[in-house]
Amino acid sequence: MDGTMKASYYEGNRVLSVKETARPEPGPGEVLLDVAYCGICGTDVHIYHGAMDQRVAMPQTIGHEASGVVAGVGPGVTEWKAGDKVVVRPLDNRGETAADRGHSHVCAKLKFIGIDSPGGFQESWIVPAFTLHKAPEGLDLKTAALAEPLAVACHDVRMGEVTEGELAVVIGGGPIGMLVAMVAQAAGARVILSEVNPSRLAFARDIGIEAVNPLETDLPALCREKSGGSGADIVFEVSGAKAAALGMTDLLAIRGRIVVVAIYPKPVELNLFHFFWKELKLIGARVYEPADYEQALELMAARILPLEKMISAVYPLERIAEAFAALDANPEGMKTLIQCGGK
Amino acid sequence: MDGTMKASYYEGNRVLSVKETARPEPGPGEVLLDVAYCGICGTDVHIYHGAMDQRVAMPQTIGHEASGVVAGVGPGVTEWKAGDKVVVRPLDNRGETAADRGHSHVCAKLKFIGIDSPGGFQESWIVPAFTLHKAPEGLDLKTAALAEPLAVACHDVRMGEVTEGELAVVIGGGPIGMLVAMVAQAAGARVILSEVNPSRLAFARDIGIEAVNPLETDLPALCREKSGGSGADIVFEVSGAKAAALGMTDLLAIRGRIVVVAIYPKPVELNLFHFFWKELKLIGARVYEPADYEQALELMAARILPLEKMISAVYPLERIAEAFAALDANPEGMKTLIQCGGK
Repeated sequence: MDGTMKASYYEGNRVLSVKETARPEPGPGEVLLDVAYCGICGTDVHIYHGAMDQRVAMPQTIGHEASGVVAGVGPGVTEWKAGDKVVVRPLDNRGETAADRGHSHVCAKLKFIGIDSPGGFQESWIVPAFTLHKAPEGLDLKTAALAEPLAVACHDVRMGEVTEGELAVVIGGGPIGMLVAMVAQAAGARVILSEVNPSRLAFARDIGIEAVNPLETDLPALCREKSGGSGADIVFEVSGAKAAALGMTDLLAIRGRIVVVAIYPKPVELNLFHFFWKELKLIGARVYEPADYEQALELMAARILPLEKMISAVYPLERIAEAFAALDANPEGMKTLIQCGGK
Repeated sequence: MDGTMKASYYEGNRVLSVKETARPEPGPGEVLLDVAYCGICGTDVHIYHGAMDQRVAMPQTIGHEASGVVAGVGPGVTEWKAGDKVVVRPLDNRGETAADRGHSHVCAKLKFIGIDSPGGFQESWIVPAFTLHKAPEGLDLKTAALAEPLAVACHDVRMGEVTEGELAVVIGGGPIGMLVAMVAQAAGARVILSEVNPSRLAFARDIGIEAVNPLETDLPALCREKSGGSGADIVFEVSGAKAAALGMTDLLAIRGRIVVVAIYPKPVELNLFHFFWKELKLIGARVYEPADYEQALELMAARILPLEKMISAVYPLERIAEAFAALDANPEGMKTLIQCGGK
């Protein structure tokens, strides 16, 4: 557990460096993880663009979608041992108080590991033992690195209370939208993905998701047509587009639900009249709870979702700067992974 | 059941006339009601102001908050007989289709009686038998005329799933806001009413509702103070004010709920970031279901709410024009009733 290792650092101004550093020792309650793969999230790209410089303590190792192998454990850790294959749920709720009423995953003083503290784009990573979930037996760690975004999708679908046969519209076909569509479909919903980008439309159709361009198809009419005139049961707003926020209430049946997955940094106009008239419901959803990770890992173990197709590119840690630059040059890809260990 | 009667007519341009007309005969499935009292709703005032002229077939008898006595029944009506004291649930769902999925009270082709068809500001009124509920034994028909707005409040509180001990904020202290506050309090919530009008603040305090002016009191801080730092469990937005819509998410705890009661004719800005960050929920609520009427009538029978104090003024039918003009001159009153029968 000694020696040196490579780690990447976001240094501000779109600079990601890779340096040799001392391999750390796990303290009490901590686990040393040899990171296998760590996915690049849209949030990592925001950080890279400098949009979160007030929150990120530079230079900082970022990344929070990691799979890996336990390399060592600190004092008091009995539930994990060297060699265990795991994924990380990057939420540190140790600042939780009674005022949070048990909602640990969104507690007021939540620290998001990989943003508010060092992340997974490094060879070895110290994480609190309570953040780990066992990777499914026999699943490769490349696919396992999708556990974090898949858990987001599981949380969104669970918060939306999707049931068998419902008509669900997913607005926005980026990685999270695509995973929400997959999970909603696995929950028995009939899914329509709304997306304007032709390559994402093609990707969705290729993996068996009905996908339409709302600029070419009358989406409200399509929803009514597929529901005996009622409209959709649920909309997942994953695009973050103002027009989507304003138009989403047109798609829904009486008592339809909306799950807001996208992050809107500024207030945005909604058609509250539709909420009143059709008694609609809007549900905010953020990150995931342990049960969502368990569901994501079960879905992975069952191998019913085309997750491997989500992986557009894999770069070794040494080439992380190139990976981020490539995402800027072509933002249409789904998930880029950084291979952090040589295993 | 023959002879003549008086009826009022909205003729457009703030004109309300009262005329002698033939007393109608109930047809199949219909009941002839001798109207006792009929309250003036904010919607009636909108109609009077000409804001709904495209929907109201002038000249038309309006009014939909009525109590009365059954005077006769049409063919096929067996559940009611002359002399029964009743209140009217003014929803005609006979245009309901399968696409409405059983949500009769907000079905796409719902007709609101008193807006889309003749209402209660007349001596005798023909209504479908299915719109009637029995008035509580011994309750005077003046108070019973509050059943309709009270059922709105019951519906709002039920849709919000208010439970014992929760902290509820009601934004807007008009008649509906005041009734929502009463019903939420009866459901065991600790209620704060937010209102800027001094006479409405005084009215609320007089009937035992904690009321604050949000321009003078830091309402988000007050909510945290009363909840161990968490924030309010539920907000009822009854004001229809843009600033209230934008600010309401500041008041809430993690997983707090908002019931939108006010009608926003135009899209309005909401802080969707708060919905995401705290996993808030927004629930649209419109009119009422039969169960809400039953609950309203039970609350009336139990005499636990200060409903009589809600009645600010009573005018005889002949003076209905004066009643509407008085509301325009002084919109601070709570509920004005029109006494339609001489009983």
